[in-house]
Amino acid sequence: MDRDIGDIGDISAPARLAGTGEGISPQELALAARNHGMPLEALRYDLTPPGLHYVLVHYDIPYVADAGGRRLTVGGLVRRPLALDLDSLRSYEAVTLRVTMECAGNGRALLSPRPVSQPWLVEAVGTAEWTGVPLRVLLAEAGVGPDAVEAVFTGADHGVERGVEQDYRRSLPLSVATGDDPDVLVAYEMNGAPLPPQHGYPVRLVVPGWYGMAHVKWLRDITLTDTPFTGFQQSVAYRYRLTAEGPGEPVTRIAPRALMIPPGFPDFMSRARVVRPGRLGLEGRAWSGYAPVVRVEVSVDDGRKWHDAALDAPEDRPWAWQHWHTAWTAAPGSHVLVARATDAEGRTQPVEQPWNRGGFGNNLVQRIPVLCLPES
Amino acid sequence: MDRDIGDIGDISAPARLAGTGEGISPQELALAARNHGMPLEALRYDLTPPGLHYVLVHYDIPYVADAGGRRLTVGGLVRRPLALDLDSLRSYEAVTLRVTMECAGNGRALLSPRPVSQPWLVEAVGTAEWTGVPLRVLLAEAGVGPDAVEAVFTGADHGVERGVEQDYRRSLPLSVATGDDPDVLVAYEMNGAPLPPQHGYPVRLVVPGWYGMAHVKWLRDITLTDTPFTGFQQSVAYRYRLTAEGPGEPVTRIAPRALMIPPGFPDFMSRARVVRPGRLGLEGRAWSGYAPVVRVEVSVDDGRKWHDAALDAPEDRPWAWQHWHTAWTAAPGSHVLVARATDAEGRTQPVEQPWNRGGFGNNLVQRIPVLCLPES
Repeated sequence: MDRDIGDIGDISAPARLAGTGEGISPQELALAARNHGMPLEALRYDLTPPGLHYVLVHYDIPYVADAGGRRLTVGGLVRRPLALDLDSLRSYEAVTLRVTMECAGNGRALLSPRPVSQPWLVEAVGTAEWTGVPLRVLLAEAGVGPDAVEAVFTGADHGVERGVEQDYRRSLPLSVATGDDPDVLVAYEMNGAPLPPQHGYPVRLVVPGWYGMAHVKWLRDITLTDTPFTGFQQSVAYRYRLTAEGPGEPVTRIAPRALMIPPGFPDFMSRARVVRPGRLGLEGRAWSGYAPVVRVEVSVDDGRKWHDAALDAPEDRPWAWQHWHTAWTAAPGSHVLVARATDAEGRTQPVEQPWNRGGFGNNLVQRIPVLCLPES
Repeated sequence: MDRDIGDIGDISAPARLAGTGEGISPQELALAARNHGMPLEALRYDLTPPGLHYVLVHYDIPYVADAGGRRLTVGGLVRRPLALDLDSLRSYEAVTLRVTMECAGNGRALLSPRPVSQPWLVEAVGTAEWTGVPLRVLLAEAGVGPDAVEAVFTGADHGVERGVEQDYRRSLPLSVATGDDPDVLVAYEMNGAPLPPQHGYPVRLVVPGWYGMAHVKWLRDITLTDTPFTGFQQSVAYRYRLTAEGPGEPVTRIAPRALMIPPGFPDFMSRARVVRPGRLGLEGRAWSGYAPVVRVEVSVDDGRKWHDAALDAPEDRPWAWQHWHTAWTAAPGSHVLVARATDAEGRTQPVEQPWNRGGFGNNLVQRIPVLCLPES
């Protein structure tokens, strides 16, 4: 289980906030060079093409040379412990779900003060079709004991975090693990192919509607327990806290968000957008982990006035983002485009920064500065 | 062609160097969030798995809904201009080459002073199998005119760079374009599948042995010219220069480099490596765009002493990296591991930083600090 690795000096430091005006640190850059977002122009695709889906790996991507020899164990408070290889998993009826996944830290690097961690802007998202076995089916087969309250999921990725050596490990309440809203999957295919190494090969958890930290990759064990899991990734990381002290609230489902494909063309270095005068389409995707998105509003004047965009119906894919579009007649000068999603339960996106110490669940509206060139 | 976009203020600025102690800027971070390196543990794979190969996109990834309707044109100083769709390209005998590709800016963010651009550490590399038609075959079919001196390649990606609006465009000398060392490819498959959008779908150039800027993605036109191309990406960017003035020297082939899989396990935030005492394998890959790598040396004491690693033979794949391995008996304490490649023409890697204003062709040796824990 988690263990304090002892005195390892500077290499594993407590969480901190960046100082006023402090640039992105070499450590944050090293994370950004490995873990990448989805280039926003890929919002054009309902199903994110391979390699463009966001990736966040806490430690190293485990190397699995012989997936056939691996077993996923299901144990703890169950009547019939299981040890399932890929063939066993494939022998169950397969379920495929289209799921929009987002990192809980998306937007972190835009916060002030900035929590020092993976420095996401707004691109930590992607949509894929995951195929696997519903977790509730496996748990029914194993026979969950009457005292079980949580299922604990252990990945094969191993590292240190704030002085604690650990395998990546997270839990779900039993009601979620055995429920069907969402149908939690033990997935072995992404977009109809074996999982890529960085997405959890050979087997991972998929928890539709929840932020990415719940979707344990390189899944090797599921243990049913009679006490809530208190490991690092559950009780230290991934909590909503305003100060370093206190237990905070757990990070769970995805707050609503709309993203827009930045229109026109970019400057290489600043990524600032340039358009020519005239009418152009604006489009993007919107999602919420709580309920379908029912409204997307767009502002072309940095949030002073808003109008409703046209929102495509969700096509019986409740866990996937929805396409939206509208039009804009660009006039020469500087503009700021904004989009805002609202879900069926009334959750919407703030126009002022929410803030918490981990930089989690931040769904501040996206702002896209655009320069419209003079009439030529 | 390239055109000055006029006064667009701050959004397209001249190249600059970071000031002393200046952290990574929001603009550099925005590039790092889009363009990702290859996580170094992926050096385990001779063929980089999909999505782990490095990506550098100057502007946006063009959206191609109907690849079948696209034509690659071959014109300028040719006797028979061509307009080739995907089916036409597939009608030529296909050639597949395994190619290690590296960004010319790899290592830039480690330089001091740091050129402000895509802030690569050392991960901007990857190896893929590219399938397509040798460019010399297409040029023979088109019939190159006697006055032609260069072939100019135009991609579909469009943007602004230092005030110049442009389609991404690069040239090759005619001797390279029509040569077979390397065999330049007009490629339509990567690892046996259609090109992913971010790697140039539907058609790109592959110039084995050259840095990535030469491998024009989303290729839509090849024009033979009687004067050397002087567009932005040829004569402004991608030049070796010590000062902002002067023409500099063109960036062409890949300088030798060895990379090591960082051993042990990482701290999440610092990416620092931790190992336990005892014997462990060290391994990685090495390559050069000039000649086969004939020697990889490893130091476990930050370059004071070196020993030769075992180097696998290149297997008739002259443009792909080679695997190497050695062993190390780790003792408790702090260590710095270093690897250094030397090619058959005697080129090797410097242990002190080379420097140029664009941060190109930097092949400073990789240094991996490792903490070995006490005996437990």
